[in-house]
Amino acid sequence: MPSPLILVNLKSYKEGTGSRAHMIAQAAELVAKESGVTIGIAPTYIDLHPIAHHFAIPVYAQHVDGVEPGAHTGHITADALRAAGAAGSLVNHSERRLTLADIDASIQALQAQKLSAVVCTNNEAASAAAAALAPEYVAIEPPELIGSGVSVSKANPEIIKRSVATVHAVNPKVRVLTGAGIQSGECVRIAVDLGTDGVLLASSVVKAKDPALVLRDLVSKL
Amino acid sequence: MPSPLILVNLKSYKEGTGSRAHMIAQAAELVAKESGVTIGIAPTYIDLHPIAHHFAIPVYAQHVDGVEPGAHTGHITADALRAAGAAGSLVNHSERRLTLADIDASIQALQAQKLSAVVCTNNEAASAAAAALAPEYVAIEPPELIGSGVSVSKANPEIIKRSVATVHAVNPKVRVLTGAGIQSGECVRIAVDLGTDGVLLASSVVKAKDPALVLRDLVSKL
Amino acid sequence: MPSPLILVNLKSYKEGTGSRAHMIAQAAELVAKESGVTIGIAPTYIDLHPIAHHFAIPVYAQHVDGVEPGAHTGHITADALRAAGAAGSLVNHSERRLTLADIDASIQALQAQKLSAVVCTNNEAASAAAAALAPEYVAIEPPELIGSGVSVSKANPEIIKRSVATVHAVNPKVRVLTGAGIQSGECVRIAVDLGTDGVLLASSVVKAKDPALVLRDLVSKL
Amino acid sequence: MPSPLILVNLKSYKEGTGSRAHMIAQAAELVAKESGVTIGIAPTYIDLHPIAHHFAIPVYAQHVDGVEPGAHTGHITADALRAAGAAGSLVNHSERRLTLADIDASIQALQAQKLSAVVCTNNEAASAAAAALAPEYVAIEPPELIGSGVSVSKANPEIIKRSVATVHAVNPKVRVLTGAGIQSGECVRIAVDLGTDGVLLASSVVKAKDPALVLRDLVSKL
Repeated sequence: MPSPLILVNLKSYKEGTGSRAHMIAQAAELVAKESGVTIGIAPTYIDLHPIAHHFAIPVYAQHVDGVEPGAHTGHITADALRAAGAAGSLVNHSERRLTLADIDASIQALQAQKLSAVVCTNNEAASAAAAALAPEYVAIEPPELIGSGVSVSKANPEIIKRSVATVHAVNPKVRVLTGAGIQSGECVRIAVDLGTDGVLLASSVVKAKDPALVLRDLVSKL
Repeated sequence: MPSPLILVNLKSYKEGTGSRAHMIAQAAELVAKESGVTIGIAPTYIDLHPIAHHFAIPVYAQHVDGVEPGAHTGHITADALRAAGAAGSLVNHSERRLTLADIDASIQALQAQKLSAVVCTNNEAASAAAAALAPEYVAIEPPELIGSGVSVSKANPEIIKRSVATVHAVNPKVRVLTGAGIQSGECVRIAVDLGTDGVLLASSVVKAKDPALVLRDLVSKL
Repeated sequence: MPSPLILVNLKSYKEGTGSRAHMIAQAAELVAKESGVTIGIAPTYIDLHPIAHHFAIPVYAQHVDGVEPGAHTGHITADALRAAGAAGSLVNHSERRLTLADIDASIQALQAQKLSAVVCTNNEAASAAAAALAPEYVAIEPPELIGSGVSVSKANPEIIKRSVATVHAVNPKVRVLTGAGIQSGECVRIAVDLGTDGVLLASSVVKAKDPALVLRDLVSKL
Repeated sequence: MPSPLILVNLKSYKEGTGSRAHMIAQAAELVAKESGVTIGIAPTYIDLHPIAHHFAIPVYAQHVDGVEPGAHTGHITADALRAAGAAGSLVNHSERRLTLADIDASIQALQAQKLSAVVCTNNEAASAAAAALAPEYVAIEPPELIGSGVSVSKANPEIIKRSVATVHAVNPKVRVLTGAGIQSGECVRIAVDLGTDGVLLASSVVKAKDPALVLRDLVSKL
């Protein structure tokens, strides 16, 4: 069984761009090495290339357009992500929703480049739908928990359990991330015990004074 | 086993609005009565209410917004569709793509009003994803056939067969429509033989001089 | 100088659809006749046709797609609006934002049918931009006032004054509506004194137990 | 009077990413130095930072989101562009259309970082609207000429002349680029003679075997 994935979305946070992105990547690399847990980060497009080359951690884009290289202005292709050293991309994050056809196209484009797709979803039905598209991961973000400060594992463990069951009923190969409500190592432990393969989180790491400290706590119960 | 559904999308065609919409509805009612086949039409929002009240055929909206009644300008709610006498709505048509979250919300909103959702999809994977959301129908529109004049049944029967199998593997209760490439009664026959529960079509009926004639041909081999 | 326009957006409010839409239209017709003030309403697409035919008040759509009749599913054309008896349409309401190219196309499509465009904007610069597209009306909706219960005329008269000046500097023929923060006849009076040609409002009329009473108050100081 | 601007949009072309982006930047720097003409390039987000740091030419993003740094996934902020060394950004390119409100927000966000906004528009009215938002540049892309191989200057000089006049009537400080139909140095010469301040172009440089050769031709008649 592979290590759970702790995936840190740096979003467009001031505290997650430029030198801070490098500092968080360094902390992730350090704690991953100490703990044996896989820690990935999803920086902005601009920080992606240097971070993917300087650190031995999986680096994800925050979004990808499911188009071939060509006459597309302001787009980001899977081809460009692979060339930049990415391991994969978030797809359909709640802050960057896509049409069903575009989610499918993004997954196809990523997989054609041997990159992983992490499709974000907002409930059990959407998670099952995403699973039918056969991405590597589905990350469940119940809207009532996004940025709420409430732990998904404690507040609503049933939605996680049911989503894992539904996703696996559709496609048992798709791994599931708990995508909201992760505050601490105990949350991560509960998320894994509920059957998910890791967590997707953002501000608690990105805005931390000492990201390594937070990351160490997050992996502490695994 | 219920009758196949012949669903005619009137789009925004000049030949499908106003008095022409009524004429097509009348033809649909007539041919449905003669043949025993269910024929539905999807007129514009403006024609929906009068047609649903004057004709004994199922009337579908072309789009619905998955929101509750409230402060939404330029939206169309499932609640309003039910009050207007609709039987359901198209969702995610190729000319009106929605996010995955909105497709799910539209289906939920329709079903809460006891209306049917006909979710349009562009390939096998998207059809499976749509099926996971448990709409009443999935209508498969392979992009290479939309408006092409080529019959889906003849040109690419495999995509239909595989999509039916994939949809039913995810949710056996979801019915499948062949949503492109339907030119004649023979096409409808082949579509049904390939395992679909009917067809979604548009211009060949809407632009016909005599829609009843075309509809009679479409149901002739059932 | 023409009468100011009181334009009531019924949105998708439960209290603004079906029989309630007719009741509000009747109240608008009554108060318009009593006062000599022009009162228009913008009902849902479904209510638009019957209301435009039963009442002698200008009826607006809440949105229009700037496309020709044709293969557009779930769209609403200016052609269909004209056939339904509409006087015009809202364009780019804050709940239905459009691209710049689509705003322009919508205005062109409306004007080709001799219908009026009421383009909603969120600030002074956007109002000037909208004016450059030469619609009949620009309705200014400062986001901080939408649904706030604060009167725009009292809270922020300067933004209205400056927007009127900016709009007229770009195109003196474009009329301006105060599109948020209208609670009472006094607000309407101030809006007009600030140089606008009327108001666009919604919930205070739509949700009123007695819409005629509210409308009488709104026109009372003109 | 400043030099005209030759702005090369590298889009997502395979021939405009990675080492090819660097090669084109080098050619631009060389020809700019030889000729004294300002040549800018708009690479993908991923190539933007290294190119802005290695070459003494203005580098533009292909798109920017008009939001502050924060919880925005898959977005690109003006703040991040400035940190990466960009000189500005394209806004509302025909392949990446924005709402009017977002165009305005993008311009504001860029200017708050002392970056230049190049707003693309599709016709005379939209150009006037864009000018009202006071960007540094408006780039006119008549849709009938995009990628057509027809020179805008020859085919339709009137639309350019009228657009320049309309833009300057709204805001005389806004500079205008001819944004489609540029094939050669003669086209650039005509574009400038028609009153524009430069050109925006893409494939003819990006797909050239020898971009320096093409760039030399483009500046040859200035």
